[in-house]
Amino acid sequence: MFWHLLTVFAATALHFSATGEASECLTDGFPLVRNVSKLPQGSFGIPGLSHSTLAGSVLHGMKEVEVWLQTLAPGARTPIHRHSCEEAFLVLKGSGTLYLTTNMHPEFPGNPHEFRIFSNSTFLVPIDDVHQVWNTNEQEDLQILVIISRPPVKVFTYDDWFMPHTAAKLLFPIFWDAVCFQTPLERDEL
Amino acid sequence: MFWHLLTVFAATALHFSATGEASECLTDGFPLVRNVSKLPQGSFGIPGLSHSTLAGSVLHGMKEVEVWLQTLAPGARTPIHRHSCEEAFLVLKGSGTLYLTTNMHPEFPGNPHEFRIFSNSTFLVPIDDVHQVWNTNEQEDLQILVIISRPPVKVFTYDDWFMPHTAAKLLFPIFWDAVCFQTPLERDEL
Repeated sequence: MFWHLLTVFAATALHFSATGEASECLTDGFPLVRNVSKLPQGSFGIPGLSHSTLAGSVLHGMKEVEVWLQTLAPGARTPIHRHSCEEAFLVLKGSGTLYLTTNMHPEFPGNPHEFRIFSNSTFLVPIDDVHQVWNTNEQEDLQILVIISRPPVKVFTYDDWFMPHTAAKLLFPIFWDAVCFQTPLERDEL
Repeated sequence: MFWHLLTVFAATALHFSATGEASECLTDGFPLVRNVSKLPQGSFGIPGLSHSTLAGSVLHGMKEVEVWLQTLAPGARTPIHRHSCEEAFLVLKGSGTLYLTTNMHPEFPGNPHEFRIFSNSTFLVPIDDVHQVWNTNEQEDLQILVIISRPPVKVFTYDDWFMPHTAAKLLFPIFWDAVCFQTPLERDEL
């Protein structure tokens, strides 16, 4: 259930996606109004996850904001992670727990604060704060709308709350961006 | 029902807000997880509108993205307007019509395209495209989640689709930002 233990599954999923879902790379044209229930969605090899990109950098050419719809099955959770962007959440269904470190130790996140999140609640995660969203409700799915700035997102993941910041692993492009992600043809840096 | 005809009502609403809702200016401290149904909401003098800021520049110190929850009663509509930011929508309830001009006349918006929007649909409005969201469903409310970049938003409003761009009126700060908006104490320009 840990995302960070599932890179092998994710790699497999991406392989299938790269061959079977090429038509989902829609930057060149997509209907203006789209039915969310008919958008491409995937688990990307992560048990318990269903992800759809409603407004995306890689998929739709967004440059400043990105919107995701994610459902976490009971017990499913994001990795412990941080990113240098603003992030806002709206809980559409279910409940769970947000783990968040603020004023963290300079060398590692440390024990996080716990916040109960619930249907029709909203919360913000400050830039670079280490956090994790966990569906701790064993009875029902947790459905969240996630809004980030500065797409495409660059995520740094931690194995645990005491892993040094310097050891956090860069996850880029993130699973759902990887299928359609294209390295820029030209690079300024030599 | 036209927003642009209601500045007098809006001014009245802002007067009341400025005296009665000062505690809603929450930049200095707000709960991390908030119940959306208990957030401040207002019509800002605009019949048929209910607006709540879930994540805001003025209210919550957001610098890159902002999230609004808006309900438009049957017949209610936004002004015809444009803004220099990205904008994404998710329709949570109801249905209506998006009017949007793309590749518009250089001097005025011109006749817009019409798009039906519906519950669980999502759409993007490109930067600077002139648009209007209208609850054309006479039977039920239209509830939308609105995500913008580059807050606080600067809106230019049009009286009609053939009003010159040069005559569009700047609405800044927008109604819901005005209550708590503070002019920067220092200005670089002299």
